[in-house]
Amino acid sequence: MAITITCFERSPDSGRGLARDMCVRWALEEAGQPYQVKLLSFDALKETGHRAQNPFGQIPTFQDEIVKLFESGAIVLYIAERYGGLLPSETGSRARAISWMFAALNTVEPPIFERSLVYIFEQDQPWFDHRLVAIDKSIRSKLTDLSNDLGTKEWLKDDFSAADILMVTVLRRLQGTGHLEAFPNIARYVVRGENRPAFHRAFDAQLAVFTASLQT
Amino acid sequence: MAITITCFERSPDSGRGLARDMCVRWALEEAGQPYQVKLLSFDALKETGHRAQNPFGQIPTFQDEIVKLFESGAIVLYIAERYGGLLPSETGSRARAISWMFAALNTVEPPIFERSLVYIFEQDQPWFDHRLVAIDKSIRSKLTDLSNDLGTKEWLKDDFSAADILMVTVLRRLQGTGHLEAFPNIARYVVRGENRPAFHRAFDAQLAVFTASLQT
Repeated sequence: MAITITCFERSPDSGRGLARDMCVRWALEEAGQPYQVKLLSFDALKETGHRAQNPFGQIPTFQDEIVKLFESGAIVLYIAERYGGLLPSETGSRARAISWMFAALNTVEPPIFERSLVYIFEQDQPWFDHRLVAIDKSIRSKLTDLSNDLGTKEWLKDDFSAADILMVTVLRRLQGTGHLEAFPNIARYVVRGENRPAFHRAFDAQLAVFTASLQT
Repeated sequence: MAITITCFERSPDSGRGLARDMCVRWALEEAGQPYQVKLLSFDALKETGHRAQNPFGQIPTFQDEIVKLFESGAIVLYIAERYGGLLPSETGSRARAISWMFAALNTVEPPIFERSLVYIFEQDQPWFDHRLVAIDKSIRSKLTDLSNDLGTKEWLKDDFSAADILMVTVLRRLQGTGHLEAFPNIARYVVRGENRPAFHRAFDAQLAVFTASLQT
């Protein structure tokens, strides 16, 4: 069975590569694995059939001849472990890279994702400015720590890994906010990620889905 | 080298087992692995020595003869993979359990943790009630999905796994909010987790640290 992933039929991010299929596509491209895409409407996400794959009615899901997975972080980890090349082979370095995968999703992402939610749901509220100040402070704190650790390194660990896929994916959500410009080494790190041929292929593929959706 | 983890010298949760060392202690107890604890003051968390282990200056970290890790999710996964018994052995079931680990931290936890932050930082703000309504709606949505999937099952997957350690840990933060009572099967699931002997040992150990800190 070919690898099949699920994605939005029409992504709410208008094809900017911020939906959570992006990191899965990127990992598959880095691993050189072809895949099929099943597109889902917002209604289909909430139906029983999809919930059997993802109980929370979200994209992406992932299926190959062995597994049925949900959660983009878990899917990227599975791709890295099954197809190789995206995690160090030595046990200590490998486990440390996995620490960085969780750090991207559980330490760095929360205030960044919250910032997006505030813009969607609270932009017209009287407390919007106050909320934004607090969240931006929290984001700067995380980026300061990340910037100090990154230093002049090319990637989080020595070689490009699945941790960089998740971290760059998380950080891209800050583009246009001014945060990345305040940390030049992080800004360059994100650009390095985006310049990888596998990133380009993944980005173009998700954009093509959105563009096609406008013609229906 | 014995396993060593870092914890708060005096946890801000007053020993309720909500600090992130709790799930690591629990996993180690389930795996039957003895461990040492290095206690850190809030000042020590921010020092260079600790940041070499955790760039974000947080607890817990984990060290054995092979690895130096941070991020509680990554540490629990490492314990499960290295010491066995906390993940299914069959590849498909194992990867699915890891999906649930990420779901606990990246899908279920964000609104629950945000609720705690709102109580800490926004309780005196005029918009507090409005914020709480929005967050509680988000939490109910996640719990509804979780409850539907859990049904009458004892654990998330067939047998108790590392995914249950993380999910129960995340859900315990809702105790006292009324949310768990609205989903009786989830409430029973949390109690089942708390009734495990390994949970008791882990809980008592972290409480003992806090109790001792009051006497200094």
